[in-house]
Amino acid sequence: MRIVSWGLGAMGKGIAKNIVESGYMKLVGAIDNNPALSGKDIGEILGTGNCGVTISETPDVIEKTNPDLVVIATSSFVKEVLPQIEYSIKSHANVITIAEEMAYPFDSHTEESLYIDSLARRYGVTVLGTGVNPGFVLDTLIISLTGVCNKVDKIVARRINDLSPFGKTVMETQGVGTTPEEFEEGLKSGKIVGHIGFPQSIMMIARALGWNIDRVEEERKPIISKVHRETPVVEVKPGMVAGCNHSAKAYIGNDVVIEMQHPQQIHPHLEGVETGDYIEIYGDPDIKLAIKPEIPGGKATIAIATNMIPIVIGAQSGLKCMADLPVPRSILSIK
Amino acid sequence: MRIVSWGLGAMGKGIAKNIVESGYMKLVGAIDNNPALSGKDIGEILGTGNCGVTISETPDVIEKTNPDLVVIATSSFVKEVLPQIEYSIKSHANVITIAEEMAYPFDSHTEESLYIDSLARRYGVTVLGTGVNPGFVLDTLIISLTGVCNKVDKIVARRINDLSPFGKTVMETQGVGTTPEEFEEGLKSGKIVGHIGFPQSIMMIARALGWNIDRVEEERKPIISKVHRETPVVEVKPGMVAGCNHSAKAYIGNDVVIEMQHPQQIHPHLEGVETGDYIEIYGDPDIKLAIKPEIPGGKATIAIATNMIPIVIGAQSGLKCMADLPVPRSILSIK
Repeated sequence: MRIVSWGLGAMGKGIAKNIVESGYMKLVGAIDNNPALSGKDIGEILGTGNCGVTISETPDVIEKTNPDLVVIATSSFVKEVLPQIEYSIKSHANVITIAEEMAYPFDSHTEESLYIDSLARRYGVTVLGTGVNPGFVLDTLIISLTGVCNKVDKIVARRINDLSPFGKTVMETQGVGTTPEEFEEGLKSGKIVGHIGFPQSIMMIARALGWNIDRVEEERKPIISKVHRETPVVEVKPGMVAGCNHSAKAYIGNDVVIEMQHPQQIHPHLEGVETGDYIEIYGDPDIKLAIKPEIPGGKATIAIATNMIPIVIGAQSGLKCMADLPVPRSILSIK
Repeated sequence: MRIVSWGLGAMGKGIAKNIVESGYMKLVGAIDNNPALSGKDIGEILGTGNCGVTISETPDVIEKTNPDLVVIATSSFVKEVLPQIEYSIKSHANVITIAEEMAYPFDSHTEESLYIDSLARRYGVTVLGTGVNPGFVLDTLIISLTGVCNKVDKIVARRINDLSPFGKTVMETQGVGTTPEEFEEGLKSGKIVGHIGFPQSIMMIARALGWNIDRVEEERKPIISKVHRETPVVEVKPGMVAGCNHSAKAYIGNDVVIEMQHPQQIHPHLEGVETGDYIEIYGDPDIKLAIKPEIPGGKATIAIATNMIPIVIGAQSGLKCMADLPVPRSILSIK
């Protein structure tokens, strides 16, 4: 399997490293718009030793190398990855992207989804958006658990995680280190966004279960710290914001049928908060699941994007979501 | 979707009821070898009111009604369901069976699997073995969790459940109510079998991960009760056997790479045992999952066998396992 990595941030680098180290996939190209990386051997930034693959600033390496699949790890948003997906499809390559909005864009970006789906079918390739969340914890895993239910009335899920390992961009989009006033302003200006993916996870579940959601309401509240918290990139004094408590409710009529909470903050344990992924399905039977600690976001996104490669290459053409494809599985530990 | 139910024990009745009550699937035939049921309207034994479907002792109702799919819930063993699967395929029907050995028969029953696969492809139909376990808890769910791992070294899983709701056959095959001596004799004679499905679950995981298992060792130990335990069908005095502690280990060389425990007993809480499903994946990252209480076996088997119907009808032809197909999801709560 010949792969091109597009985007060499923390996630893209991790995926590229997985491919290089797999022993049976071949990284044939790498693209990043950072001029400082251009012309370097990718092995240099992966720490794997020279790979013979030069990082390119322009995507024409895709046409030149004719890969089976392009992994796009450049942005969270459909608007920004759309031209990259388009370019890859037109170069006859399958696509996996970790852009959160692409995990289930059919409702949030209907026109773009129909276009990508149609283009992918025309070129005989498959496009998938995936990641740990959206892509697994608050959607695919929930959907698969409903498979052992005779009836599902309501779904409640929480993902309580620790942002401490993340870099400056994540701290800014989550409002970590702001004052409560700055947090409110950041929400209004769109600088603070919280979690990206609730509408996607909710609509993926809804389509899988045949639920017609009337509306989704999201709420973003500051997690105001009572204690001093600090990471290498940010400092939070008592009274300042340690993260964003982002939640979403999906309604059918006046009934909340899906409820999700995803408080993201640095060092939650400093105030006694235990991290974990929690899923509660109310129906017949009820199911109560806990994964403690939470599935770690960065590692798991790198893993699932890599692990879906053979499934996407083998799938029928078109724009797919995780619920359309066989269950994910580790492809990196062949024994 | 036109369905025939073959086998009307507790599981088969539950599935048939799901189909009748779904509102969008149609039960067109029912088969059971119990002469007492023959000729009755199936609605009579389901408590759903008259369905206009007469229970037949013979399978020719399949040929007559031309269903899209036959659900076979007659036996746990490949040997016993093979002729029923064969008959259904030759009647051009897709098949779902809850026979545990059919969840992943490719290693334990290679010849039969190749025959079924080839026959199903020739007739353009799909055959799937499923159920809560094997079929979900100790295989499909584990496989999907490895999808967020960059590396998997070892898998340890436990399913600790309560047999109290089950009938006499289950108590006998698990040795509930025997003396320790009778338990040992029962193991030797094959009357006491414990859990059916460890080799299937293990080999399904192994194929998904690309692991070449050298050998699987199973162990069945009596759970000797310290207290008095009782259900409507069995009595266990202190010193007698309350259930079977069945475990399995899969080796690559001298390393145990998959370890499963499935102690099944009546009223485990009487000795302070908490029921639940527990999965631990050791790798990068580690994952520790708990579902408490356990996903209930009977209800969940009925659910997953029903829920896989549209996926099986829509799948490519051949003999499939759960890991080959899109993730299960509830089809019975359309809103």
